[in-house]
Amino acid sequence: MALALSLGRRGQGQVAPNPAVGCVITSGGRIVGRGWTQPGGRPHAEVMALAQAGAAARGGTAYVTLEPCAHHGQTPPCANALTKAGIAHVVSAMEDPDPRVAGRGHDMLREAGVAVEVGLMAAQAARDNAGFFLRVQSGRPWITLKLAATLDGRIATASGESQWITGPAARRVVHAQRARHDAVLVGGGTARADDPLLTVRGLGVRRQPMRVVVSAGLDLPAEGAMAASAAQVPLLLLHGCDADPGRVAAWEGKGAKCVGLARQDAGGLDVGAVMKALGDEGLTRVFCEGGGQFAAALLDAGYVDEVIGFSAGMVFGSEGRAMLGALTAGALADAPRYDLAEVRRIGPDLMHRWIRPL
Amino acid sequence: MALALSLGRRGQGQVAPNPAVGCVITSGGRIVGRGWTQPGGRPHAEVMALAQAGAAARGGTAYVTLEPCAHHGQTPPCANALTKAGIAHVVSAMEDPDPRVAGRGHDMLREAGVAVEVGLMAAQAARDNAGFFLRVQSGRPWITLKLAATLDGRIATASGESQWITGPAARRVVHAQRARHDAVLVGGGTARADDPLLTVRGLGVRRQPMRVVVSAGLDLPAEGAMAASAAQVPLLLLHGCDADPGRVAAWEGKGAKCVGLARQDAGGLDVGAVMKALGDEGLTRVFCEGGGQFAAALLDAGYVDEVIGFSAGMVFGSEGRAMLGALTAGALADAPRYDLAEVRRIGPDLMHRWIRPL
Repeated sequence: MALALSLGRRGQGQVAPNPAVGCVITSGGRIVGRGWTQPGGRPHAEVMALAQAGAAARGGTAYVTLEPCAHHGQTPPCANALTKAGIAHVVSAMEDPDPRVAGRGHDMLREAGVAVEVGLMAAQAARDNAGFFLRVQSGRPWITLKLAATLDGRIATASGESQWITGPAARRVVHAQRARHDAVLVGGGTARADDPLLTVRGLGVRRQPMRVVVSAGLDLPAEGAMAASAAQVPLLLLHGCDADPGRVAAWEGKGAKCVGLARQDAGGLDVGAVMKALGDEGLTRVFCEGGGQFAAALLDAGYVDEVIGFSAGMVFGSEGRAMLGALTAGALADAPRYDLAEVRRIGPDLMHRWIRPL
Repeated sequence: MALALSLGRRGQGQVAPNPAVGCVITSGGRIVGRGWTQPGGRPHAEVMALAQAGAAARGGTAYVTLEPCAHHGQTPPCANALTKAGIAHVVSAMEDPDPRVAGRGHDMLREAGVAVEVGLMAAQAARDNAGFFLRVQSGRPWITLKLAATLDGRIATASGESQWITGPAARRVVHAQRARHDAVLVGGGTARADDPLLTVRGLGVRRQPMRVVVSAGLDLPAEGAMAASAAQVPLLLLHGCDADPGRVAAWEGKGAKCVGLARQDAGGLDVGAVMKALGDEGLTRVFCEGGGQFAAALLDAGYVDEVIGFSAGMVFGSEGRAMLGALTAGALADAPRYDLAEVRRIGPDLMHRWIRPL
C-alpha cells in the first residue's frame, strides 16, 4: 500500500477534478502490475495496473489507495474491470466520499465474490487526496500557502528589493510545488507588482497548472508576460461582477477565462465566493503565492490548509516588507494554527511545511 | 578527537574566560583517561584526563582539542603535566591563539621528546571555542541571538500577548542554551517590559550564567524579580556614564555590578563599548534574548555571530509585533547573512540555528 500511495502521488496536480490514485497488483508474492491515475484523470490507476499485469492478475490482490469507482463515467467502472480480470482480493485504503461511489465500489466487488478489506494506511491516503475530498465535501480546493522570507519574516527590503532572498534550489522547489497543484493563485496586487508567469519551468513538466488571479477591478497589466501567455497556459481571472465589461472582453480576447463574483461590503471579492469558483472550476489543490493582503484574507477566513515556509539566512529588520497583511484575530488563542509536517534544508535555505490540525 | 571535542563542549558556559577544552588519553588501543575543563576554568582538561589515567598514561597518546598551556597561571602548565606523566604522543586540534601560549605549548612538548601532531578536526575545534578566540583576538564575546516567533515572524499580538508562542519543549531548549553561554543579555526595554529572571531553570544547573542588562539611563524596575535576585545571581548593568548616581548606588546596593559606558550621539550606548565591556568581564559566549531594538543595533554593528530561531505554527499578521527593530542596511546585498547550521523539531515547534559565514 505504501508503494501504491507513492505511485498515486505522482498524479497530484495532474488529475483534477479526479483523485490521484495509485494501484499495485500482486500475485504469487510478486508485483505484477503498478498504475496511477493518468494526467487529465484517465485512465484510472486500476486500469493501468491491470493492463501491466495482463493474465498475471488472475487470482491476485489489488492494493488501491481509494475505493474503485462504481459508476459509468467516461470509462466503465474500475470495480468491474478488477472483477473481470479475475482479481481475488482487493485491499483499499479508504472509501470514496464521492456520492457516485460512497461504498458502492466495494459492494460491487463483494457481490462479485471478491474479498475486500478497507482501511489500510487510511490516514496517509486521506492526506494525499485531501484536496479531492475537500472539493467533494465542501466545494472548495485544498489551499497551500507559500511564505518565503528572511529569518525575521520579511519578503522585501524597504525599497522593495526581493531578488533573491531564497536561493535557486528553493525556487526550484517552488516550481515543483506548483507542478503538484492544479492551480497557482495570486492576488491582483502581486499580479500588478510582479506580472509573474506562474508557470512550472525547468522541470520538464508538460501539463501546466492553471493560473488564477483574483482582482476585484480586473485592473491587471494588459501588456505583460501574463497577458502574452494567456492563450498558451490557462489563465482564470476572478473579478467583481461589476468590473468594466471592456476589460473583461479584452482579457477574454487574449485567451483568459473571466468569472464575475460578488463583492464584499469592503469592496474586495468575497473569499468564500472565490473558493466556490475554484471548486466549480474542478480544482482540488491550489498553491497560493501571495500577496500578503490576499493571503491574510484567506487565513482570516480559515481557508489555508497547508503552509510551506522558506526561510533564508538573512535579516532585513522592521523596515522590510511584511509577508502578511493584517488579520482580524486579535487574541493569541484565536490565531490560525498549524502542525509541523516536514522540515528540509534546501541549498542554503530552510523549507518547513505545516498542515492545519484535523 | 571527536570524543575529546564532545567532552570539551560540556564546559561551554561554565569556564569563561578559559576555553572549554576536552582531552582523551589512549594507551595500548584503550581509552585510559577522559577530561574536560572544569566549571570556573580549572582544573584543565589534560589534568583531569591524566588523573583518571594514572600510571596507564605512560607511553600513551593524548588527544586535546586545543594546544596545552605553556604558562604558569594558577596551575602549572599542562604541557609539563603531560610530559611528566610520560605521554609519548600528543594530537592537538589547533594552536592556542592566547599570546601566553601561541605555539609554546607544542614547542615545550617537542623539546621534551613528545611527538606532536596539530590540526586534527581543527574546524570543529575552532567553532567550539569561537567565543574564546574572539575574546582573545577582538576583545569581545561570541554573540548568539535568539529569535522566537510565529511563522510570519511576529513575537506578540497587537495587544502584546506573547505567552505562549513556542511550547514548553522549546522554552526548555532556551534554558539549555542559556546554560551553554557565560551570560544572558537583554536590552533595557525588555527588562522594563518583562522584568525577566533570565536564569536557567529546571535543568539542575548549579552555575548560573551572568545576567547583563544594557540600559543607557539605568531606568530599570527597582522592585521586580531581577532586582530581588541580584544578590543571588550575578547581574551586570551596563549604563551611560551620565546615569543618575543615585540609581547606580541603589543597584549596587542590591548586589548588581554597574559599569558606566560612553553614549552614542543618538543617546543610546555605543554597542562597540558594550562589546568591550562584555569582553573585559571575561565573557566568551553571550546569549542575547532581545529586545528587537537592541538586537537590531547588534546586527547593524555586525556583532551577531549566531542566530537561534524558533518558529511556532501560528500566524499573527502584520498587526503583530515585529521581532527586530529597523536596520540601517537598505540594500538586499548589505543585509546581515547567516549559514544554516542545524535544524531540529522541538515539540510542536521548529528550531533553526544559523552561523555567520567565515
